[in-house]
Amino acid sequence: MKLYNYFRSSASFRVRIALNLKGLSYEYLPVHLAKGEHRRAEFTSLSSEGLVPLLELDNGQRITQSMAIIEYLEETHPQSALLPADAIGRARVRALAQLIACEVHPLNNLRVLKYLTHELAQNEAAKNSWYRHWVALGLQAFEARLAEAPATFSHGETPTLADCCLVPQIFNAQRFDCDLSAYPRTMAVFEACMKLDAFQKAQPSACPDAEK
Amino acid sequence: MKLYNYFRSSASFRVRIALNLKGLSYEYLPVHLAKGEHRRAEFTSLSSEGLVPLLELDNGQRITQSMAIIEYLEETHPQSALLPADAIGRARVRALAQLIACEVHPLNNLRVLKYLTHELAQNEAAKNSWYRHWVALGLQAFEARLAEAPATFSHGETPTLADCCLVPQIFNAQRFDCDLSAYPRTMAVFEACMKLDAFQKAQPSACPDAEK
Repeated sequence: MKLYNYFRSSASFRVRIALNLKGLSYEYLPVHLAKGEHRRAEFTSLSSEGLVPLLELDNGQRITQSMAIIEYLEETHPQSALLPADAIGRARVRALAQLIACEVHPLNNLRVLKYLTHELAQNEAAKNSWYRHWVALGLQAFEARLAEAPATFSHGETPTLADCCLVPQIFNAQRFDCDLSAYPRTMAVFEACMKLDAFQKAQPSACPDAEK
Repeated sequence: MKLYNYFRSSASFRVRIALNLKGLSYEYLPVHLAKGEHRRAEFTSLSSEGLVPLLELDNGQRITQSMAIIEYLEETHPQSALLPADAIGRARVRALAQLIACEVHPLNNLRVLKYLTHELAQNEAAKNSWYRHWVALGLQAFEARLAEAPATFSHGETPTLADCCLVPQIFNAQRFDCDLSAYPRTMAVFEACMKLDAFQKAQPSACPDAEK
């Protein structure tokens, strides 16, 4: 498998974690988002969405969207399950993942921040307030949901899709100096994840295209 | 089952479509987002996220996040399947759904538009440009993906999770006067969906809490 991705892309980071948790090897193909490589024909000919991550299977079939990729990996490589066995548990894990992937991350990714700066002429302070606002709303909800069923990871005693989404979001929040002190359960889950090689090896600074 | 929802909420609309397609009856419990009812204790005591849709099962268990709810319905009521039988097909349907649910809708929902108006002091024109920008980006990608495998619905000859996400997005785009002429394949899928009772009966104007 080949993974088209970018060291700093949260959505790419989610897939790297899932691949590592499942012990699946892959070829890392960097697409430099900040330089606009995702908008070049070499890449858009592979994926009309022009987004990373993009997973290319050995037979050439391609899958987009990080959560669709992870669900595919889960179905085709069930070992080290990233979803619980029961339907209600799976619904809770997917909801926690989507709380990050549908409520927080889409508002804070690179293209949105660029729109705020360029089209809406917002300064750095306004951009940072925007960023921190959506992180705070999302993590407040995430923290409250963790209190429903406290465990080592977001759901239970092994990492799931929810943790694949949470950890990149925390990395990003730290990059934007968000105050995370109000989310002790969430941060304990983050720390538990970061004790695992699968998460350590997926982090931006460990990627071949990492920049300081 | 009880569905806490709001007639104009796209995410609620997705779940109403899925319930109708599967022929599942449910009690409709309105939560008036524009009046802030989702932030009142009566509702946040049920869901710390304070978001609709919220599905409450007959045993009292509650599920949040529209796509997690639909995946749960799919697992527990497999009739009228909303995901194809093959893993690659499922990945494509989920990716199409997430193209709407993770790339377009989160940028254009009510709380984001309110932030643009209040915190960022943007006028109506700037808000509409923002709205139309993300719709155009998302639908361009959606249209290109439909061209990969033209069919009556987004994927194949029966409606899927992708259609549950697409149709509410088109309703919203029409409300904001987006120009949809560049997306003929997407609009043909929309029209095919709207020929079905399941979609007709789920639309905002058919809801018990509908307003003009």
